[in-house]
Amino acid sequence: MIAINISPIDHSLEKALQQKIDLKTKPIGALGDLESLALHIGLIQQSLTPSLRNPHMLVFAGDHGIAKENLVNPYPQEVTYQMVMNFLGGGAAINVFARQHHLALKVIDAGINYDFGDQPNLVHAKIAKGTANYLKEPAMTEAQCLDALQKGAELIEQIDRDDCNVVGFGEMGISNTSSAALIMHTVCGIPLEECVGKGTSTNDDQQKTKLQTLKKALNIHNKIDRDNAIQILSTFGGFEIAQLCGAMLKAAERKMVILVDGFITTAAVLIANELHPNFLSYCIFSHCSGERGHAAMLDYLKAKPLLHLGMRLGEGSGVAIAYPIVASACAFLHEMASFDSAGVSKENH
Amino acid sequence: MIAINISPIDHSLEKALQQKIDLKTKPIGALGDLESLALHIGLIQQSLTPSLRNPHMLVFAGDHGIAKENLVNPYPQEVTYQMVMNFLGGGAAINVFARQHHLALKVIDAGINYDFGDQPNLVHAKIAKGTANYLKEPAMTEAQCLDALQKGAELIEQIDRDDCNVVGFGEMGISNTSSAALIMHTVCGIPLEECVGKGTSTNDDQQKTKLQTLKKALNIHNKIDRDNAIQILSTFGGFEIAQLCGAMLKAAERKMVILVDGFITTAAVLIANELHPNFLSYCIFSHCSGERGHAAMLDYLKAKPLLHLGMRLGEGSGVAIAYPIVASACAFLHEMASFDSAGVSKENH
Repeated sequence: MIAINISPIDHSLEKALQQKIDLKTKPIGALGDLESLALHIGLIQQSLTPSLRNPHMLVFAGDHGIAKENLVNPYPQEVTYQMVMNFLGGGAAINVFARQHHLALKVIDAGINYDFGDQPNLVHAKIAKGTANYLKEPAMTEAQCLDALQKGAELIEQIDRDDCNVVGFGEMGISNTSSAALIMHTVCGIPLEECVGKGTSTNDDQQKTKLQTLKKALNIHNKIDRDNAIQILSTFGGFEIAQLCGAMLKAAERKMVILVDGFITTAAVLIANELHPNFLSYCIFSHCSGERGHAAMLDYLKAKPLLHLGMRLGEGSGVAIAYPIVASACAFLHEMASFDSAGVSKENH
Repeated sequence: MIAINISPIDHSLEKALQQKIDLKTKPIGALGDLESLALHIGLIQQSLTPSLRNPHMLVFAGDHGIAKENLVNPYPQEVTYQMVMNFLGGGAAINVFARQHHLALKVIDAGINYDFGDQPNLVHAKIAKGTANYLKEPAMTEAQCLDALQKGAELIEQIDRDDCNVVGFGEMGISNTSSAALIMHTVCGIPLEECVGKGTSTNDDQQKTKLQTLKKALNIHNKIDRDNAIQILSTFGGFEIAQLCGAMLKAAERKMVILVDGFITTAAVLIANELHPNFLSYCIFSHCSGERGHAAMLDYLKAKPLLHLGMRLGEGSGVAIAYPIVASACAFLHEMASFDSAGVSKENH
């Protein structure tokens, strides 16, 4: 269906990497998660001296048919394009944090309901001006879905040519926590109530209406094949989620380190994980979002996120905040002295 | 006893700061702990545009009389000076992470059992060549304790003259998790078993011997006055813990942002908190250590640490890893656009 060829991670270097970690001037295990991170990246890169080159942050944005009904979102649909203009102007949270950590930021129009015209800094990959409303029909056709996966993959091919080996993923799209909740419920079999969170709602009434609306959507599509990830993605997805999914699969094929953001980005991981059994081991989960459902999603994937800061903004903001920790894992492996090289005594036995 | 004058934090700017945070282009509260951090730093600095200037990382090192008996530590006492040489050579974890985040690192000989001679990059503040053994007598005299507090404070006066307004604290000293456990038990009234952790032990026998030895120490000093923090510090402390304490109190007096590392540094916070009621509100807790007892210590202080990475190295390594998050809190407050300035619609009500 989609031609992707992801190798399983080769563990033959594991012992040598672990030994290198253990000989650094510190008690065994004292750097905690930084040590497992260093091991993980070393295995992805098949190197005792892993390094992060030309890090990119890809933020996919798209609109959702459902948003026009204002049943699941307190912000108007226009906020998607307005926030993309904010990204292009450098004023959003992801801009601030990407600048701070020197991440090359690419903003992708995966399917926004707006004509941007000649915006040189926007990646134009529009599938359509927003998805269809899944209260009436599937959000996209299968052809659109496959096109979106392909366009996401092409973007990775491009940054791979620029010698990038680590890529963070984020998104923007009014109503996309609803898509993510529907995907989560359908893929994981977790009750919808546990998948639907606050999103950007500010009161209980908004949340109740959101839950009722999404229950209705599930009823309408009750013949969906839960083992068919492309069908799930087409029915409930956004174009930004589909492009995320295609890009992440290609990034794993290219053996890049994949940095996953919050609830919506992890919904794309759920689909990618269904589409290829070797995909998941290329992912590092940057944080556990404050959005209800993300913790359960991570549990389903047996993923251990780096940060727990109660962030729930999307845009890749969690990735950007976690990035220096990922860089620290490589840095200690490169730069720390060993007991021998520093002339430090080891423990008595 | 020690002349320190810490102002309570003035909350009159709180509403204006919160409003500035809420008008940024993101849903209310969506940056999670970064928002409370921005508010906290704004209040410490009494500014709507807080900023971190000339950040310093102070690592205090000292030796402990108890270490010579090898009852509480698997590493020989010499590792303290050897690790300090490693710090001066740039090969320790804290060097790697301080370089990564441009923190000016100062290593202080608070009382190491070694003659360093002419080491220009070491801060010479030696009280004595290690503390006395608390299985026989108090670790230090009250005069030594006050001298250590004073020497710590002087170091802050010096970096204050260099226009530093944010300072991280770390330590090195073979056996100092034992001092920290004894201080924790005595100040907080938490059972010793819950205060004594792995430290650098590698097996259960070492941990049992450590616990038995520390029980003996408590018995020997069973007349200690639990309301007299100076007595507690003198009896069980290390010179590095006392200098940490003096430095942190002075940093609060100078309205610096104080970044606290792990178990031992937080033991110094426990003492400083006893010595001045306004001290604690200047502290940011960088992480929850993997060392048993640290979580309970943080609970006692009602402190919410930024990171949970299972690190238990000391040296200030947790501070250095958390530093970019603290910087991000200031950055978003400075650099993010507001709804108005970016032309983004607010939510419907």
